[in-house]
Parts: sequence; structure tokens; C-alpha cells
Amino acid sequence: MKRIINDGYDVVEEMLEGYEAAHKDTVHLLDDDKRVLVRNKLSETPKVGVIVGGGTGHEPLFLGYVGEGFADASVMGNINTSPSPEPCYNSVKAVDQGMGCIFLYGNYQGDVLNFDMAAEMAGDDGIHVETVLSTDDVASSTEKTERRGIAGDVTTFKVAGAAAEKGYDLDEVVRVTQKSNDNTYSMGVSLSSSTLPVTGEAIFHMEEGDMEVGMGIHGEPGMGVSQIKTADEIVNELLEHILEDSNIANGDDVLVLVNGLGALPLMDQYICYRRVDQSLKEKDINIKISWVGDYSTSMDMVGMSVTLVHLDDELYELLSAPCDTPYMKQ
Amino acid sequence: MKRIINDGYDVVEEMLEGYEAAHKDTVHLLDDDKRVLVRNKLSETPKVGVIVGGGTGHEPLFLGYVGEGFADASVMGNINTSPSPEPCYNSVKAVDQGMGCIFLYGNYQGDVLNFDMAAEMAGDDGIHVETVLSTDDVASSTEKTERRGIAGDVTTFKVAGAAAEKGYDLDEVVRVTQKSNDNTYSMGVSLSSSTLPVTGEAIFHMEEGDMEVGMGIHGEPGMGVSQIKTADEIVNELLEHILEDSNIANGDDVLVLVNGLGALPLMDQYICYRRVDQSLKEKDINIKISWVGDYSTSMDMVGMSVTLVHLDDELYELLSAPCDTPYMKQ
Repeated sequence: MKRIINDGYDVVEEMLEGYEAAHKDTVHLLDDDKRVLVRNKLSETPKVGVIVGGGTGHEPLFLGYVGEGFADASVMGNINTSPSPEPCYNSVKAVDQGMGCIFLYGNYQGDVLNFDMAAEMAGDDGIHVETVLSTDDVASSTEKTERRGIAGDVTTFKVAGAAAEKGYDLDEVVRVTQKSNDNTYSMGVSLSSSTLPVTGEAIFHMEEGDMEVGMGIHGEPGMGVSQIKTADEIVNELLEHILEDSNIANGDDVLVLVNGLGALPLMDQYICYRRVDQSLKEKDINIKISWVGDYSTSMDMVGMSVTLVHLDDELYELLSAPCDTPYMKQ
Repeated sequence: MKRIINDGYDVVEEMLEGYEAAHKDTVHLLDDDKRVLVRNKLSETPKVGVIVGGGTGHEPLFLGYVGEGFADASVMGNINTSPSPEPCYNSVKAVDQGMGCIFLYGNYQGDVLNFDMAAEMAGDDGIHVETVLSTDDVASSTEKTERRGIAGDVTTFKVAGAAAEKGYDLDEVVRVTQKSNDNTYSMGVSLSSSTLPVTGEAIFHMEEGDMEVGMGIHGEPGMGVSQIKTADEIVNELLEHILEDSNIANGDDVLVLVNGLGALPLMDQYICYRRVDQSLKEKDINIKISWVGDYSTSMDMVGMSVTLVHLDDELYELLSAPCDTPYMKQ
């Protein structure tokens, strides 16, 4: 195992301790629940609480986006495992300012069960909690609502964070966040598995020289294994699926996120971005916002994904609004 | 080879095209020299030109730090290879505002030869160019001036960028940049080689389960191969060497950079940061600035380095000054 850790059972706690120490000016873990990371200063004007979360092993997602203009709290489970209901509930108690909260996470069964239970617990306390699931992975289902959330989590969370910061009420935050998710399309490719710290083993086996398009960030099956293709061929294939699925047409505006899955060099990510840029120019689709880098990873997985968000003026404004978190400042 | 590229001979050009396209609002490549990346808008008040550079394959170093408050230009060579004198000279012509320029790069023979030649060429045109070499790798020599530059490049460049932005003249920029380098100490550990795109091969061979402390970012030999140790053991060893070499003492202030070399998960980097934080607290050394992440990489190398900058008030102010580049905003 090519990892630098101590005991494999301690990685989440030790990572969180390190994260809190490194970013102590902006965030802290709750004294009585070390799986909940919150902003040191909540908004001076009460606003909707924005809470993101899920399993760990996807850093900087989710914890890296807690800060002004983005998330108020992040709830962290074990690796690739949903947090239990209690920390989800504790996050609500920590950040609710009387305007209700929104839970945001990728569409995975464990997360849905546990966050829903926490929302009920909060409801019993009179705190209104709504949920918007990220369902951006085009490869995972033909039904939009059945899809997994992958890197499109980040753009959808950003919209919610900006809307809450602007003072939208809970219904309006839900509306615009749902609109963002409805207009977000991703697909990825993996060349290798990530390594689980406890076992030291890969989650799945990939032959050297092979790749799989459409694979999920936890190793969920994609659209079949092939030999590694060129960057241009891979991007063409991802864009073909994404554009076919979406209603993005000539003359439309998009955000592009080329996301590294952890161990893919930035060099390769920019080579991929180059082809996305060329291809969308050929189709007369306007890239209004471009993000490249490791936004949502799977530890040491080699791979990348492409996300397009079909923009209208409102989504453009919210996605380009200021924020100040350790992993996104603008 | 687990890389996503097209032809291995085209990676640098294609990466730069992708980078320019993704960040076109802030930077561009020179029309007549595509190995020089410059800010779209130079400072409105003339200032010293800050030029960084070196071989590619270390992204986001060097190109990611071009922008307001940091570098005015970056000159890019082939992978692990110095840029030739001409683009270095062209960068001076592009950013000089009549106050002279400073060349900043890691201490490698090819870079020294080529940048020095460019400085002479600029001198012939009446443009004063000074140089400060980064020499932060404690493992590479007992003589400070003989050392290689590794992740401490980033902190030293940041000091120069902030000093120039504040209107320091060339002598003063050189003085404070040299002071920063003189107070910067790094040491790294590698668990695997990076992969060269043209050959598809590793630069060096490392047995599975082995690591080497003190190895350079191009695979230069370190202090001997051992089995992979725990994160805490590795950090203890790096800090011991760094602190022994430096004059950092109880009560002093430091910047800490825990730098990922490309393929090491952020999770592991924060586990390392945790131990740095614990250890320096035990020694009553104050961490005033903490940076964690992939600042200076070696493509898909698995490893990390720890950098300490011994701070005085001036260095603290310059390192925490605002900047706005794709890979550092503060």
C-alpha cells in the first residue's frame, strides 16, 4: 500500500484533527461530536443553514467547502460510508439560525436513510430541514432521479451556499439548488482503484493498461472495461454521453468542471480540459466558468470526470458569487 | 502507464493550451513564445517584474502562481528540464516595467545556465535582472547554497511577489526574497516514482512497500531506502533533520507547508500535518501560517514534503499578503 498513514482504523479521526489544526482560523470540529465540522463564525444576519456531508475518502469534498458563502457545516462518515444520523442531527443544532437548514449530499442509499432520519429528529425539535440530492452521474442510470452524485456535488452545493448567503429563504434555496442539480451532468473514467487504509487493498481490481468509463467514485460498475484510450478520445466519449443526455444546445452557456479523482496529474487534467474547450467551441457552446483540479476525489484513484452545468443567469450568478473556504475562494 | 494523455511528446504544449483556455481571464501565453505565461494585466503602478520558472511536471508549480500579488510570468521547459534562454529572455521583455526583474527558480544546473544567459541578454538591452535561487532541500547538501529547491520554491516566490506588489525596489525585493530562502527548510519522502509521458516508464524503480527520505522531486537520491514507516514516524524524522539544520527555537514563529507530491491523498497529507502540529506544539514553536496540499508536485509521484519557514514580522506580512492566482488566493 502506497499510503502515508498510522493505524488504518484511525485515518478519519486523524485527518479531521489535522484539518481542524491547519484551518483553525475558519473552522472547528464540534466539542461533543468530532464528525461535524462547522464555520467558526456563522453569518451575522440569520440565514438558511447549508449542511453537506457523506463518507470520507473524497477530500477536499466535503469538509473543504465549509466557509463563508458555501457550507456552514460538513458531516463526515467513515471511508465511503454515510455518517450516522446523530452527527447529521448535531450539525443542524449547530448551524440553524431559525430559518431552517438544507441537507446536501450525493444520492447513496445509506446517506439518504441517515440524513432523512436526522431531518425527522430536527423536525421534532421544530427545525425545518429540506434535502436536495446530487444526481449528476449520467452513466449510473437513465433516470435522472436514480443517479449517483459525483463531482457535480460541488457545483450544486456552491449554488445552495451562495443562495443562502444572499438571504434566500428555505423554499427558494431548495428551488435553485434543485434547478442546479437538474442541470448538472457528469461522467468519469477510472484507470485504477483507490486503496482502503484498513485492509491496504484496492476496492476493485483493474488490469494494468485498462480503464472503465462511467465507473462510480466508490468503484460502482460503469459501461465496460477497455484499453486506456487517449485523452482526446476519452473526453470525446464522455462529452458525447453527457451532451446526448442533456438539453444543452448551440449557443448555450455552461460551467465546465474537469475533476481529478486523486492521483491523476494536473498536467493530464489540463490536457483533458483542452479537448473539452475545443469540442464545446466546435459545438458553439459557451464556457462561462471553468474549474480544473481535484474537487471530489477517491483518495488515490487514477481517473477524472467531466461535469457540465447548463447555466441560466441565476445559476451563473450563484456559481460565480464570492466564497471563502480552504478549497474554494473566489 | 496510468496517465490520460495524447502523444507523450505533446504533453507540455497541450497542457499549456488547456491551462490558458481554463484561466483565460487572468493569464495568457505569449503570441510568439508559447512557453511563456504572463498576467493579462500587469500592475497599473510600475513595479519589479517577478518571473518564475523551470521544468514542467511540477504543476501547479510554476504556472499556477502567475497572477496579482505573486508572479508576473512563468517560463516553462520540457518535463524536468530547464526552459532555454530565449523564453526566459522573452518573459523579461514581456513584463519589465522599467524597474527591473527578478528570476526565481530552484537551484538546478540547467536552470542556472539558461536563466543566467537570459539575464545577460536582458542586461544588453539595459534591463536589470537579478536572481534568487531556491535552496531549501535540507537532504541535498550540508551547504545551504548547494541545495536543491523543492516545495520551498512556493514560499520564497510568494515573498518576492508580495514585496514587488508593495512597491519595493529591485534591491529590496532581492533582499527579502533571499532572506526568505535563507530561512526556508524542506525535506521530503517518496514512495514511488513519477511516470515520464514519452517513455511510459518510471524515472526510477522503488520496490513496493519501500520509501526513501530526502529524495529529490526528479528522483535524485536521498538518505537511503527503508520500508514504509507510519506517518508519525516519517514526520518525526523529517522534522528532526529540518530543526537540527535550522536555527528555529522555542518561541519562534513558522510557516508550515505540508506538500503532496502528486498522488498522495489529501487524507494522508492532513494526517501528516496533524503530527507536525503536535510536534511543534511540544517544542513551543508557533505555527502562524499553515498550508496543506499539492503545491509543488512530481506528476504522479506518491510522497510528501514538509517545509518550515522561520518567520520574522516582515516575512509573515509578505507571506500572508493578498494574492489572486489560479492556485493561490488569499
